[in-house]
Amino acid sequence: MQGVEKLHLEDALEDSPQTRQLLAVFERDASALRKYSNGLHSCCSRIMKAQNELCAATQSLAQHLRDFEIQKFPLESDESILTSTLKQFASYLDDVSSIQQVLSAQFSETMMYPLTKFLQADLEEVSTLSEMFQIATNEHENTMNKYMKLPKKKESERQRQESNEDLYMMRKKFHQSPSYKHAQLITDFYALGIKD
Amino acid sequence: MQGVEKLHLEDALEDSPQTRQLLAVFERDASALRKYSNGLHSCCSRIMKAQNELCAATQSLAQHLRDFEIQKFPLESDESILTSTLKQFASYLDDVSSIQQVLSAQFSETMMYPLTKFLQADLEEVSTLSEMFQIATNEHENTMNKYMKLPKKKESERQRQESNEDLYMMRKKFHQSPSYKHAQLITDFYALGIKD
Repeated sequence: MQGVEKLHLEDALEDSPQTRQLLAVFERDASALRKYSNGLHSCCSRIMKAQNELCAATQSLAQHLRDFEIQKFPLESDESILTSTLKQFASYLDDVSSIQQVLSAQFSETMMYPLTKFLQADLEEVSTLSEMFQIATNEHENTMNKYMKLPKKKESERQRQESNEDLYMMRKKFHQSPSYKHAQLITDFYALGIKD
Repeated sequence: MQGVEKLHLEDALEDSPQTRQLLAVFERDASALRKYSNGLHSCCSRIMKAQNELCAATQSLAQHLRDFEIQKFPLESDESILTSTLKQFASYLDDVSSIQQVLSAQFSETMMYPLTKFLQADLEEVSTLSEMFQIATNEHENTMNKYMKLPKKKESERQRQESNEDLYMMRKKFHQSPSYKHAQLITDFYALGIKD
């Protein structure tokens, strides 16, 4: 993170072009990180799914080997060595499949859970806040434009006051929005330690 | 195999009801074995497929981790420790996936190949021969019926001779068919050692 300026909460109120530019850089970075992390998530899901399927397939083979006993083979004697051998093999396969199940649970706990949490709790929130910020910016600018276009005549005094009130509300809303957003972005990238 | 009578090649010519019955038992056994083995084959195919998919998924994750380097993260410095760490992790995953590939090759060689060969070369042949035997039996019986229904008059002498010739051909054909079939069945079940 050396060489990159930090976003400061107090800059949000001022909302200077520099702050805006820096914010845009942070946003692009967050967006690239989200895209990459989504790819990572689907790769990990694929491994998880294959591991689960392997586990289920092993169990099904063990079950099929056990089913040998209940098959009716006209030429098979009851005390056939094949039945007991297949049973032994099936219990060995059960061991294999339970080890695979443990591995699958570990994948789920240590790979999928943190990744999903990071994607949902952090990156999704940044993206939602970014949209909210954009909306607040647009609303603020529209109200500002409306205020600027008011004629400077005496009779429109009441109208100007109303517009002034609107502008005050919008600016307040706008200031609340990016402040929170900046704080969020800063918290994310520093506290997560992922891009440090 | 104790307690079960054997099919003898020389009984085929005689084609007694006992031999027929014994043959039917062998056929039912072969059919049950084929059904069971087909189930076994699909279980093993499923494991094989899951193992291959797991291997491919691991490779794809390794590739995605390597791709981190070529992502453009605006806030990422070039000498980031994350890039080199992910590279190390990717090469570790490559090791895992190559071990999985070896396992997959072993599955293919020692599990799928003998099973497929047994199903195709032996059980399929028994079933084909069984059908051929049934056809020869039917043809032989039809010709025999035709011969029996011939009127015992002088003028049909030529017809009887033709029919006699037919019957001779059919019986010869019939005798060739089950002889081979018996021999095949016996060879299968004893030489394979699976039902011994």
